[in-house]
Amino acid sequence: MNPDIQRERENATFNTDLLTYVLDGGEEKTRRRREIESLVISDADFQQEDANFLSRSERYDAAVRKSAQMILKLREYGISDPEEIYCYKNCVHRGRPEPLDLHLGMFLPTLLNQATPEQQERFFMPAWNLEIIGTYAQTEMGHGTFIRGLETTATYDPATQEFVMNSPTISSIKWWPGGLGKTSNHAIVLAQLYTKGVLHGLHAFIVPIRSMSTHEPLPGIEVGDIGPKFGFDEVDNGYLKMDNVRIPRMNMLMKYAKVDRDGTYQKPPSAKLTYGTMVFIRSMIVGESSRALSKACTIAIRYSSVRHQSELRPGEPEPQILDYQTQQYKLFPLLATAYAFKFVGQYMTETYHRITGDINQGDFSELPELHALSAGLKAFTTWVANSGIEVCRMACGGHGYSRCSSLPDIYVTFTPTCTYEGENTVMMLQTARYLVKSYRQASEGQHLSGIVSYLNEAHQRLQAQPVSSRPTVVNISDLASLVEAYKLRAAKLVEVAAKSLQGELQKSRSPEDAWNNSSIDLVRASDAHCHYVVVKLFAAKLGEISDTGVHSALSTLALLYALHGVAQNSGDFLQAGLLTVPQLSSVSQRLKDILAQVRTNAVALVDAFDYRDEMLNSVLGRYDGNIYEHMFAWARKSPLNRTEVHESYHKYLKPLQSKL
Amino acid sequence: MNPDIQRERENATFNTDLLTYVLDGGEEKTRRRREIESLVISDADFQQEDANFLSRSERYDAAVRKSAQMILKLREYGISDPEEIYCYKNCVHRGRPEPLDLHLGMFLPTLLNQATPEQQERFFMPAWNLEIIGTYAQTEMGHGTFIRGLETTATYDPATQEFVMNSPTISSIKWWPGGLGKTSNHAIVLAQLYTKGVLHGLHAFIVPIRSMSTHEPLPGIEVGDIGPKFGFDEVDNGYLKMDNVRIPRMNMLMKYAKVDRDGTYQKPPSAKLTYGTMVFIRSMIVGESSRALSKACTIAIRYSSVRHQSELRPGEPEPQILDYQTQQYKLFPLLATAYAFKFVGQYMTETYHRITGDINQGDFSELPELHALSAGLKAFTTWVANSGIEVCRMACGGHGYSRCSSLPDIYVTFTPTCTYEGENTVMMLQTARYLVKSYRQASEGQHLSGIVSYLNEAHQRLQAQPVSSRPTVVNISDLASLVEAYKLRAAKLVEVAAKSLQGELQKSRSPEDAWNNSSIDLVRASDAHCHYVVVKLFAAKLGEISDTGVHSALSTLALLYALHGVAQNSGDFLQAGLLTVPQLSSVSQRLKDILAQVRTNAVALVDAFDYRDEMLNSVLGRYDGNIYEHMFAWARKSPLNRTEVHESYHKYLKPLQSKL
Repeated sequence: MNPDIQRERENATFNTDLLTYVLDGGEEKTRRRREIESLVISDADFQQEDANFLSRSERYDAAVRKSAQMILKLREYGISDPEEIYCYKNCVHRGRPEPLDLHLGMFLPTLLNQATPEQQERFFMPAWNLEIIGTYAQTEMGHGTFIRGLETTATYDPATQEFVMNSPTISSIKWWPGGLGKTSNHAIVLAQLYTKGVLHGLHAFIVPIRSMSTHEPLPGIEVGDIGPKFGFDEVDNGYLKMDNVRIPRMNMLMKYAKVDRDGTYQKPPSAKLTYGTMVFIRSMIVGESSRALSKACTIAIRYSSVRHQSELRPGEPEPQILDYQTQQYKLFPLLATAYAFKFVGQYMTETYHRITGDINQGDFSELPELHALSAGLKAFTTWVANSGIEVCRMACGGHGYSRCSSLPDIYVTFTPTCTYEGENTVMMLQTARYLVKSYRQASEGQHLSGIVSYLNEAHQRLQAQPVSSRPTVVNISDLASLVEAYKLRAAKLVEVAAKSLQGELQKSRSPEDAWNNSSIDLVRASDAHCHYVVVKLFAAKLGEISDTGVHSALSTLALLYALHGVAQNSGDFLQAGLLTVPQLSSVSQRLKDILAQVRTNAVALVDAFDYRDEMLNSVLGRYDGNIYEHMFAWARKSPLNRTEVHESYHKYLKPLQSKL
Repeated sequence: MNPDIQRERENATFNTDLLTYVLDGGEEKTRRRREIESLVISDADFQQEDANFLSRSERYDAAVRKSAQMILKLREYGISDPEEIYCYKNCVHRGRPEPLDLHLGMFLPTLLNQATPEQQERFFMPAWNLEIIGTYAQTEMGHGTFIRGLETTATYDPATQEFVMNSPTISSIKWWPGGLGKTSNHAIVLAQLYTKGVLHGLHAFIVPIRSMSTHEPLPGIEVGDIGPKFGFDEVDNGYLKMDNVRIPRMNMLMKYAKVDRDGTYQKPPSAKLTYGTMVFIRSMIVGESSRALSKACTIAIRYSSVRHQSELRPGEPEPQILDYQTQQYKLFPLLATAYAFKFVGQYMTETYHRITGDINQGDFSELPELHALSAGLKAFTTWVANSGIEVCRMACGGHGYSRCSSLPDIYVTFTPTCTYEGENTVMMLQTARYLVKSYRQASEGQHLSGIVSYLNEAHQRLQAQPVSSRPTVVNISDLASLVEAYKLRAAKLVEVAAKSLQGELQKSRSPEDAWNNSSIDLVRASDAHCHYVVVKLFAAKLGEISDTGVHSALSTLALLYALHGVAQNSGDFLQAGLLTVPQLSSVSQRLKDILAQVRTNAVALVDAFDYRDEMLNSVLGRYDGNIYEHMFAWARKSPLNRTEVHESYHKYLKPLQSKL
């Protein structure tokens, strides 16, 4: 153990395990997670060469091998709880995506949710036993966010009782689905349904794409890998072009909408059924934001505790770089953010489960709000985590740029969350639509409930007093007071957006143009709303913590999170008259004091995330802090070092010398 | 040609070529640059498979091949002007670094600058003819920024008249130098010089590391590649461990410091000789910031002009995504930034050349200011460009994540600039040191000249009037007035930092602790200072533009740059009393108007950067806008598509089915 990092742990003022239990949701959950992790990590079948040293094809190959093993082992061990499967899988693939993700996460669930009992009979067991390997093909080369724009067609032919599937244009080629390129032999394809010459909009069809015996593409199918990406090397994101591919009528998923033998179309009963799934996926993504950022913080903070550089005081040894205020200012707010997002993710999952219970009893009332909020929170947390990972990487100096740090890998694996499952700006605008609607309702005298209820009082409050005469409400050392300030900031920015929209409408623009011309303000309003929710949930979480050591450490982080946000958005708080100029100076000073407080517990706070070295896979983030010897050992395994002299020397450099 | 992008070009209000001349520094320079680009791009010897489809070893191999060709061709064509060599090289390697970069950019120049005539006689021609291939080995595994901390030793042995080179610890292993791993057979090694038992600090030594006949590592040398990185796949960044490696006395570079035969040490005459080189390198990096960001903007803006998505108005076709205000708000300020940084780079290079002239005549007076400023500008521009590239990538949605967009490649190639040649935070603090010193001088009544001269007047101005009674100085539609506001903001933040420092000192801390405890404020001050300089230089550039169309387009961009910065840092401007709350609302409105104005010329403004498709290497950024067919063509070439059925199917998936 590196003595620097050991000393950090000795100086911590709380019991790390107790905080880990809070993060896992209880001691028993921590125990079980650790058990599963040990099971996977000690399993010889899941060992592999460092992925950084493999080509993309080798990485794909290794991932398929591990996924196949995983399927067998999950059955062998009887692991069937979804959370435990997720944990096992995450551990097998070390947090990376894998080729069967869409088979397990989209193909099977969609069958369960949208297939008729007869269809389930026919498709589910073969899919469960991986004779059918499926994916979910929605996005097209020319169409992502706006799914109504999808061009793929499914035209019903009553003569043969088949659907004829077509990709009528280049831009209609299915593009991006994971596992589509090489792995899957079936795809659930979203296509525009035509029957009796009438367009009925998007529906889902099960399309066989490769032979179940030879795995060769079937006639009329052109399928392949879309090529290398920033990350996701393990996944064969694919393309699919269909040319008059005929599938039986029973391959349309018909639990809701139906096409009869003669081509008569029956509408589905309700269109809002997908709300729940979207909320669930977004709550998972918020959890991912916390996970990715907490990994990056673990690496950067451990590294900063063992890395020595420059001099603070002449003649003394080089200090740990964690002692530099600028380093603390980069890393500690992100550490606080990782905690904040963890609690947001917990809240969303709990709320989702609570509401899902209600749905089964038919009470949808809270769903629109959660749906609207989940869009913004997905965008807010992924954007912040995304840039935060890069701050962590760059805070590790040159070594952060080496793949041995794992930080590049964490970044490229995480960054697609800003785009998939709803592009972030579009997500922000979805939340804004809900906020503006709520604001209008409040100003019309309706009483709002739920998390937007602040728009009731805030509306009155902001209206009643001009900025100059409004008393300053914020006590910058009091978290509850800061939550209040975030609330009023959100209320103010929702108001600004609503008024901008109103102003545009008065210029007699169309509602759509008015919306577009106010969208900068709308995104800002969403952002402020989400920020408020995050601060509020962090503060609320503190009430659940009984251990005084943990409570104290987390309270400091919560205050840091809140004050740092004030400093970063000081213009908003000044503009809304929530802070005075002298108070802003006090915020700066207070932040510095808090950084020094967090310094004491920084390593313990990242230890509490409880990432095993095997999961971090980072030389810089090693638990024992012995970075240099392991960096050297890692480098020696670089593929370029397999020979002492690279062949290019004999091919190009040696011959060049004779020509000069 | 895609009709959307064609229409964009037809609607432009200025002549693109005229703006390109401004960027290149004159029509003749544009002509010559294009000539060189054509020379390289039409040269069959420089064709290669898309680097995205190659393994790292193949990419290194291809780069060595092209570098060797390049050396021959440069001599064949007689290209010897440094700027033209840079252009040729940049074109051969498509903007990527290459294995001979340090040989050409550091080893040869260091020989010229620091070797005695006899040493040059011995080393220069062999190095010129690539018998000697060299690199420059400074950083060590445990030491980057703080070069005094380097541990490598060179101990003089008068008995044999040799230096004994050693890497005494793991952390002293040389780490990161480009071309060190596999390419070089010599290295200029920075080491602590010991002679007669006395330490004389860092000196440079020429160390042979590989045999000049077999290229095998020499005895006592352990050398290799440091392993895969985020990017820089073409470069063999290397490690070097020396165990009692003996080199002749004449291998110490002795133009300045000397070690006599008996081991007597002679000090160099002046220690400040490296200032000029550092300034030059930093001005190059500022130019890189502009180049990388302008490439990213070109790709994102062209893509946004041909990509259609969602609906603005019901029933109408999907609009170009460039019509969305949120998309404009992401991309146009970055476009303005790319222009701003281009002009900053031009200014720095010009000033450097002017001062270098002075240096040769012995007038160093302006150098400290330029040196201090260049540090901050390097940090300011690289940070902004770094995050800006990612904004551009994500503005392209999912396709930005594909390597066919080239955006991942631009990012990973550019991002090390935030770390190398001086870690950015350290750079910011260097500039801050100069600012605080200047502030003290001004407050003591000294009259400052040069770019910090604003601290004279600002000091008085800010002192004289309390915030509340100060008249608002800013006309938000007037660039000169905004420059003034940026100046006063900088003055204010320099003052805040200086006072923080003073306050810490009064708590009787050591000067070093006081500095560290004020470093957040100091970085902010530097940032504001650099921001002021950038706005000021952009405004100054407009005065040089005679064509009215170009002038008008650039003036709009300059105003956008300035106002966007105000909006992003509104807290500073409010806090300093430079803007009122109502004015801030006007800024938001004005920004929206300007976005609509820039919209007309957006494609023409990126066309003016004049990147050939071969240089961008981006399917999304194609000049003709025909993205989808080329994306499909590119994907089909993906290595995973070499066979219809990947071997992993037969190895793992097929056998799995029989086990389930």
